[in-house]
Order: sequence, then C-alpha cells, then structure tokens
Amino acid sequence: MKPDGTLGWSAISAYLDTLASADPTPGGGAAAAVTAAQGAALFSMVCNLTIGKKKFADVEHEIRLILDQCETARRQMLNLGDRDMEVFGTIMEVYKMPKTTPEEAEARRAAIQYALRASSEVPFELFRRCIAMLPIADRLEQIANPSVLSDVFVGRYLLVAGLLSAKANVEVNLDSIDDDAFCEAKRTAMREALDGLEENCRRLVGR
Amino acid sequence: MKPDGTLGWSAISAYLDTLASADPTPGGGAAAAVTAAQGAALFSMVCNLTIGKKKFADVEHEIRLILDQCETARRQMLNLGDRDMEVFGTIMEVYKMPKTTPEEAEARRAAIQYALRASSEVPFELFRRCIAMLPIADRLEQIANPSVLSDVFVGRYLLVAGLLSAKANVEVNLDSIDDDAFCEAKRTAMREALDGLEENCRRLVGR
Repeated sequence: MKPDGTLGWSAISAYLDTLASADPTPGGGAAAAVTAAQGAALFSMVCNLTIGKKKFADVEHEIRLILDQCETARRQMLNLGDRDMEVFGTIMEVYKMPKTTPEEAEARRAAIQYALRASSEVPFELFRRCIAMLPIADRLEQIANPSVLSDVFVGRYLLVAGLLSAKANVEVNLDSIDDDAFCEAKRTAMREALDGLEENCRRLVGR
Repeated sequence: MKPDGTLGWSAISAYLDTLASADPTPGGGAAAAVTAAQGAALFSMVCNLTIGKKKFADVEHEIRLILDQCETARRQMLNLGDRDMEVFGTIMEVYKMPKTTPEEAEARRAAIQYALRASSEVPFELFRRCIAMLPIADRLEQIANPSVLSDVFVGRYLLVAGLLSAKANVEVNLDSIDDDAFCEAKRTAMREALDGLEENCRRLVGR
C-alpha cells in the first residue's frame, strides 16, 4: 500500500461499509478476528524491521521463530473471521427448520442447540489464539528494534480487544445453550486463561 | 460481503500483508484508525438493526441521530488513518534534508520538530474521536435492539483499543519533541480525557 493509500484503503472502506450495514455478517465476530489479525501483523512488522540489522544479530534467530508464530497466528485468526460468518449462516438456516409437529419442533430445537455449540467454538478459538500471542508482545518489547516499540504496544492493545471481543461473542452464544456442563467448561476455561496472564496484561483485560 | 467472504476478505488479507511487511506504513497508526473505524461501523450496524422495527419505534429518532454520528466518526477515523501514513512520509522526507553546514543542520532540526508536532496531532485527533464515541456505546446498550448487544460490547472494546493505541502513538512522537509546553499540553489533555470517562470505561482503559 502506498502512503496515499488509495487502492488498499478503498477496500478497507468497502469492508467497513458491509460491517456497518444491516446485514448481520460481517459483524462483531469478523471485526474481532480482523482486529486480532492486525495485532499479529504488527508484531510481524516489528520482526521484519528487526531482522537483518547488525545491531540485533544476537536475537535474529529468536525473532525469526517469533515471526513464524505471528504469521501462522494471523492466518488462523483471519480464517476464524471467515468461519464466524459461515457458522452464523448455519444458525440462520436451522432457525428456518419446520416446527409444525412436535417431532419437527424437537428436531429443530436439537439442530439449533448443535449449531450454537459449534458456533461458540469459533470465538472461543479466537480467544485462545489471542491469549497465546500476549507473551510474544512481552518478548518483543524486550528484544526487538526499539524504534518500533509503539507498534508492539498497539499490537498488544489490538490483541486484548480481540480476546475481550471474542469472549463477549462466546458468552452471547452460551446464553442460548441449554447444555450447562458445556457452558460451564467454556466459562471456566476463559476465566482461568485470563487469571493466568502476566500482571501487565491482567490490567489491560480489566482484572 | 457474502458469508463465504471471498472478495472482501482477500482485500483484508492484502491489507494485513502490507501491515506485516517491513514497510513502516501502514503501521500502528493505520491499524489504530482501522480498529476504531470498525468500532464505529459496528455501532452503525446496531443502529441499522434497530431502525424500522416496531418494537423500537419509541427510540427510532434518537437512533437515527446516533447513526449519523457513527457514520461521520467512521469516515473521520479512516481519514486519520490515511493522514497518519501521509505525515509519516513527510517525517521520512525531512530526515533526508542536508546537514553539512550548521545552517542546514539547524533548518533540518527545525523542520523535523515541526513535522513531529504536526504528526502527533493525527493520533491525538483519533484519541479524541474514540473518547467521544464511548458515551454512544453506553446509550446503545440501553436503548438499541438487545439481540445485537454483543456487537455494542465488541464496538466498545475496539474503540478502547483505538484510543489506547492512538495515545501510545502520540506519546512516541512526544518523546522526540523538544517543545516541553506542547508535550505537557498533549499529555494533560489525554490524562484529563481518560479521567473524565464513566466508570465502566475507566476500567477498560486500565484506570
């Protein structure tokens, strides 16, 4: 993208138009994934602006490994944004199932519950991937090119927003899921992941 | 964008590639602006999924006014992302000014300082616009269609990430600016804006 940003920027603008529209997808799930993927991309930029510089030769091997992790995370996060839109489509479909007989109503209910459980796995996976990226921010803050330190900070803020958003998206699904054991397991896993964060991140997630 | 998201999604992926590259623009400034603009876009979606529904007829007038504010904010935020890349280009240019004579060195120093001050205004403006959007989240939480309440939460998280990122981007500029009065004014304005937030948002910004 050029500094005047025309081409790439108009694509972003078109994406934001679809986000703002009454069409429910893309919605909060896609926005959370794009935000998290931007965080991972900024960490990659920080790595790319550290690699190949004599001053940081001592850490170059480690930075290359971190870059691999960031690039993998970014792809996975963007895929989760895509899957979020797919599962939403599935839920809309199962809600259209007939419910004129008791048997149909029961089949529809079971299909909705199945789709909601499957749907909650997508933001839950995004939440986990964001959590896993936070120690990378701490490490980059210590060893990467300090002239792009503010990009490490921004990346961390975006990942925190991604994980809090993903958590809200899991919770809205859980509110409609009847399977109490399933819901409790998800809530416990998210609570434990947040409580296990280093102190600098705990403050950022409001804990 | 279709649920399979192919067209729009590949544009997002291309944007993320440029973000991740060693090219310093787009960088943290653009990512902060895109994140904030996504927050505003989600609030617009919430408005668009409230307007025209009999159940929310009582608040329709207010929601339409909020929608206008969100759409304006989104445009302005995206423009700030564009301007962030422009001013970065300017800074890169002035650093290339000659400095072989004392006069040249002084002209270069002054030009750099001017460019840094101008540059800090862009994230500062983004910070202010994000702060101004937070009361809208609170109001949407009260009156908008509750079936998209999680999108209000996600939008608020994205705006908080946008403002914290913008603040980090202002601060990295201030670190290189010699004009102490200018720096102190910016720091005070940001501190007062954060301290003036409602309690639910203060916790989200780590205060």
